[in-house]
Amino acid sequence: MQYQETENFYSNLYDELFPILRSITGPGLRQSYDIFGRYMPLEITSLKSGTKVFDWHIPQEWHCEDAYLVDPNGKTVADMKRLNIEVLNYSEPVDREIELDELQAHLYSLPDLPDAIPYVTSYYKKRWGFCLSQNEREKLAPGTYKAVVKSEFVDGTLDVAQSVLKGQSKKEVMLSSYLCHPSMANNELSGPLVLLGLYHRIKNWPQRRYTYRFILNPETIGSLSVLHILGDHFKQNMVSGLVINCMGGEPEELVFKHSRNDNGILDKLLYHLNNYGYKHGNIPFSPMKGSDERQYNSPGFQLPVCCVSRAFHTGFKEYHNSFDTKEAMGIKPLIDSIDKLEKIFLAHEQCATLENTSPYGEPNLGSRGLYPTISMVSKERERQATELNDMRMLLNYGDKMHDTIDIANLQNKCVTEMSSAIDKLEQNALLEML
Amino acid sequence: MQYQETENFYSNLYDELFPILRSITGPGLRQSYDIFGRYMPLEITSLKSGTKVFDWHIPQEWHCEDAYLVDPNGKTVADMKRLNIEVLNYSEPVDREIELDELQAHLYSLPDLPDAIPYVTSYYKKRWGFCLSQNEREKLAPGTYKAVVKSEFVDGTLDVAQSVLKGQSKKEVMLSSYLCHPSMANNELSGPLVLLGLYHRIKNWPQRRYTYRFILNPETIGSLSVLHILGDHFKQNMVSGLVINCMGGEPEELVFKHSRNDNGILDKLLYHLNNYGYKHGNIPFSPMKGSDERQYNSPGFQLPVCCVSRAFHTGFKEYHNSFDTKEAMGIKPLIDSIDKLEKIFLAHEQCATLENTSPYGEPNLGSRGLYPTISMVSKERERQATELNDMRMLLNYGDKMHDTIDIANLQNKCVTEMSSAIDKLEQNALLEML
Amino acid sequence: MQYQETENFYSNLYDELFPILRSITGPGLRQSYDIFGRYMPLEITSLKSGTKVFDWHIPQEWHCEDAYLVDPNGKTVADMKRLNIEVLNYSEPVDREIELDELQAHLYSLPDLPDAIPYVTSYYKKRWGFCLSQNEREKLAPGTYKAVVKSEFVDGTLDVAQSVLKGQSKKEVMLSSYLCHPSMANNELSGPLVLLGLYHRIKNWPQRRYTYRFILNPETIGSLSVLHILGDHFKQNMVSGLVINCMGGEPEELVFKHSRNDNGILDKLLYHLNNYGYKHGNIPFSPMKGSDERQYNSPGFQLPVCCVSRAFHTGFKEYHNSFDTKEAMGIKPLIDSIDKLEKIFLAHEQCATLENTSPYGEPNLGSRGLYPTISMVSKERERQATELNDMRMLLNYGDKMHDTIDIANLQNKCVTEMSSAIDKLEQNALLEML
Repeated sequence: MQYQETENFYSNLYDELFPILRSITGPGLRQSYDIFGRYMPLEITSLKSGTKVFDWHIPQEWHCEDAYLVDPNGKTVADMKRLNIEVLNYSEPVDREIELDELQAHLYSLPDLPDAIPYVTSYYKKRWGFCLSQNEREKLAPGTYKAVVKSEFVDGTLDVAQSVLKGQSKKEVMLSSYLCHPSMANNELSGPLVLLGLYHRIKNWPQRRYTYRFILNPETIGSLSVLHILGDHFKQNMVSGLVINCMGGEPEELVFKHSRNDNGILDKLLYHLNNYGYKHGNIPFSPMKGSDERQYNSPGFQLPVCCVSRAFHTGFKEYHNSFDTKEAMGIKPLIDSIDKLEKIFLAHEQCATLENTSPYGEPNLGSRGLYPTISMVSKERERQATELNDMRMLLNYGDKMHDTIDIANLQNKCVTEMSSAIDKLEQNALLEML
Repeated sequence: MQYQETENFYSNLYDELFPILRSITGPGLRQSYDIFGRYMPLEITSLKSGTKVFDWHIPQEWHCEDAYLVDPNGKTVADMKRLNIEVLNYSEPVDREIELDELQAHLYSLPDLPDAIPYVTSYYKKRWGFCLSQNEREKLAPGTYKAVVKSEFVDGTLDVAQSVLKGQSKKEVMLSSYLCHPSMANNELSGPLVLLGLYHRIKNWPQRRYTYRFILNPETIGSLSVLHILGDHFKQNMVSGLVINCMGGEPEELVFKHSRNDNGILDKLLYHLNNYGYKHGNIPFSPMKGSDERQYNSPGFQLPVCCVSRAFHTGFKEYHNSFDTKEAMGIKPLIDSIDKLEKIFLAHEQCATLENTSPYGEPNLGSRGLYPTISMVSKERERQATELNDMRMLLNYGDKMHDTIDIANLQNKCVTEMSSAIDKLEQNALLEML
Repeated sequence: MQYQETENFYSNLYDELFPILRSITGPGLRQSYDIFGRYMPLEITSLKSGTKVFDWHIPQEWHCEDAYLVDPNGKTVADMKRLNIEVLNYSEPVDREIELDELQAHLYSLPDLPDAIPYVTSYYKKRWGFCLSQNEREKLAPGTYKAVVKSEFVDGTLDVAQSVLKGQSKKEVMLSSYLCHPSMANNELSGPLVLLGLYHRIKNWPQRRYTYRFILNPETIGSLSVLHILGDHFKQNMVSGLVINCMGGEPEELVFKHSRNDNGILDKLLYHLNNYGYKHGNIPFSPMKGSDERQYNSPGFQLPVCCVSRAFHTGFKEYHNSFDTKEAMGIKPLIDSIDKLEKIFLAHEQCATLENTSPYGEPNLGSRGLYPTISMVSKERERQATELNDMRMLLNYGDKMHDTIDIANLQNKCVTEMSSAIDKLEQNALLEML
């Protein structure tokens, strides 16, 4: 199978990835990277178990071979091989008989959503357990159950994966998504799938002003690991970042949670574009909810990393339970997300702080063929004036203090409309990117 | 008599202080300090007469033994011993017979308030004179009067008094009031009496984040002297200051004149609290009227010193005349002022810039018992979330740029509601006061 | 003829200047400077042809002795000696017979304004040509024409002229206008004529806080030359600048195009005065249109230079064509412009950042006779209080951060109303200009 931007391709890829038992470390994560690695080059960086990462330590790998719970009548109540969220993720091993009363403390269900099986994790305290629907739980007969989790904790690594598309500038845009939930659709696979699509779109652009870095990692401890590896690099080079998740579902428009300081290029562009027909939502940063953007936006980093989703920020009933399926997510919305994000990043390519290299007085545009050689008022000349006006604005405000969005705003026009003036001045070395 | 927060105690203390002939220097001021010193420890600092204090010099002490004016019929028209404002404060000595015509230039009365005897001073030009009501003045018979002021100007000192309650931090809150008007009630004794009450309230708090400095001084030249002694210390350590005066009278709510730069903690808190049920008034700084806050807010200091009163800022008819009595002031409003100010300073204790000591990524709250060890969506967890959200906000914005009021504002809640989260994070050394 | 501020004087001076064939260099420009030099001292600075001026080079001088175009019937179609804009300004020499068809490429007219002869220049590309009305052009008979331009390009100089009136401070106000269009009225002579009037008004002031520099120069390359000579001086000393043009015509009010950063004293004053009865217009800077202010406001200089006109910024039909006459301009509006601009610069004299030299506490105003020596509340004292309040405001906010306009704004009064308080404090050395 070769990469194709078709619903069929994405549907098949989804089906291959869905059943894998992922966690924040371990073989399921590596297997998933391998699959993505067939369609985009991925460089893997590994941190050993126990490595100190800021205030945290890399946990051991969780290897889980099998897990099931059998009732007094021999009926299987939970079975990891049927649906891998039925075992508590990161569960410690167990192999014992247990009375229902005692077992209850090891069962997880959702009273408010009685048909759904929850997805539950216990990474930082050793527990064993099973997840099941509230309805099934209420039917459990008293008696002796057989609880088996064939898991072990192994010294290994935590792995992050990245791929870079170089641009004219070292300044870079980071696009990331997370892989660590096992069989989840919208809140797991939708993000990496859209990231793959964006990789191919951006790879095919005739030129790139910026360098683009694509990252896959397990959530939280994975983005902390990315910062452990790349934090200083990001502080120097990142102009915009975007955590991509929950790209499917019903909402028509993307919603961007902005970065903490709301001062990245992408932050500014997202507001600007809304004045010119774009309809995405913009919501402010908060550390109270969210995903990896919380780590990138921690006070020690304050990177301009936004987070995009369709429904994540407002909550949806499929969140972290067995209702989060391919059907609820849909494949079509993923393609639509790729379209919308590419369009935004194409506009982002026009956004930069461009310094006038000839700042003392106006440069002689006539000597460079950029100005009418005859001074005469006429209607004709008025019509030609738009590009010339763009050039004058770009030169006058090419003062290290204004970026192209500011200059577009001064003219009440979209930054994308100034692209020909930007091109000509850059070609004549009258503007240089800061 | 021991300190008690009762109307009776305050009433008796008032009665003892009222008749003393105070001025900006001299025995009346020292006698008043002695009386306050019985109920709170007071450290006295003295500057010798003639000492240069910025653009000023410490004046000589004024000692006035007696002063009276007798009419041609032998009737006493003015008598310092009857009411001490009847002598021009800081009057030079005189002992002569004088015709009414010539005497007029030495008499002070209020044509617009004909029943009141004005309180008049002439510190910086030598004059002698008497104050009386306009009604009495109009009745004066022609003829020869006997004018006697038994005063002298003596090299001595100007004295300021202070008391410090230490807190966990060297950062300090200054509370001051002035003593220099002789028999005035609201615009003299109300301030020091409320200061005494606040001293005892704050002394009894189980802990203090800030250090509290209580100051009594004569107005203007006294606060200039305080700045002469403590100006550099204040520049380094003061986070908020408050000049307290005119704490009695009829207005129900306190009114705060803010500091010049309106950037102290107290300034910010006062606005904040008005969003959460507090009803005090806030008015901007002006150097055109007011009291010692003008010196603290001069351009060379620009200290965050506010001024609180009930009616001072808007003017009241008793201002600087014999209508400013215990009855017009009242004792009850003083206790009410103590209550309101203590409540504000209790909130002020929650206000600080707290730095996240683990700013790279989020700290591992789970390992410190500050986070649920199991990841599972539930209504129960939502209910527990408020304190956790406060912690996340305090950590993310614990960046040296945001104080706790900013963080409360980001959540549309009162800063006092975050106290448990602040406590836990400070106890775990995850936040440190800047 | 001696300078007189009369319509007659200005009318005669106009008549002498109008017929001179000016260009951006050459004898017409020097002859015009000589005429102005009779009525104000002018220092001429000359840059040699070929001198590099930032991104430009000083062009050669254009000497044009005669120019005419004769039709097949011997009738003169265009003639520089009749109206000097009938020759393309900076035209290269020609002396040839030419068929109408080929001639058309050398003719300039205005289809939208068929009665007007346009004023056309070609400084940076060598061309020859003639200007005529569209109506005349349409009547041209086919056949052979005689085209003669007796011009030559000569190494010489570009000249700028200036005159300085010194003030108490080295900080200076620049007033400039341009001379380079040949027979144009409003968009050429109105500016220098008003500049001359302002020179005499300001020379006659009893004192000047600021130094005033008056400049005449050819447009664009001339102001670039001024910056070549004075750019560093301006960066250090200029507090306000004003390019003056199009001072005649019908609009009643002056319109000020503000400086790029809108942060000069004049910028701030112009808004301020509009709150106190002044009716001039204020429009923002733009590099897209305008005159020499574009060079002063280029990103390498960012000088606080505004541009004033009556109709220039909004366009007028006489712009750069033969309709721009003395009648359309008028002489009366020039005198009115002098009045209005002088009034604004008189207010400008009250605008400065004045530092309190005694910033620690309030200075002792009483010891300097600036304060009532007796403290007593009275209606009389309230009436005297305005000047004292101005003094208190000026001293408290004399902190290097606030200028007198800010301080006037804090009191909701016009800066001109504080002049007596400013005077007294400067005389007592309590305020010093920064």
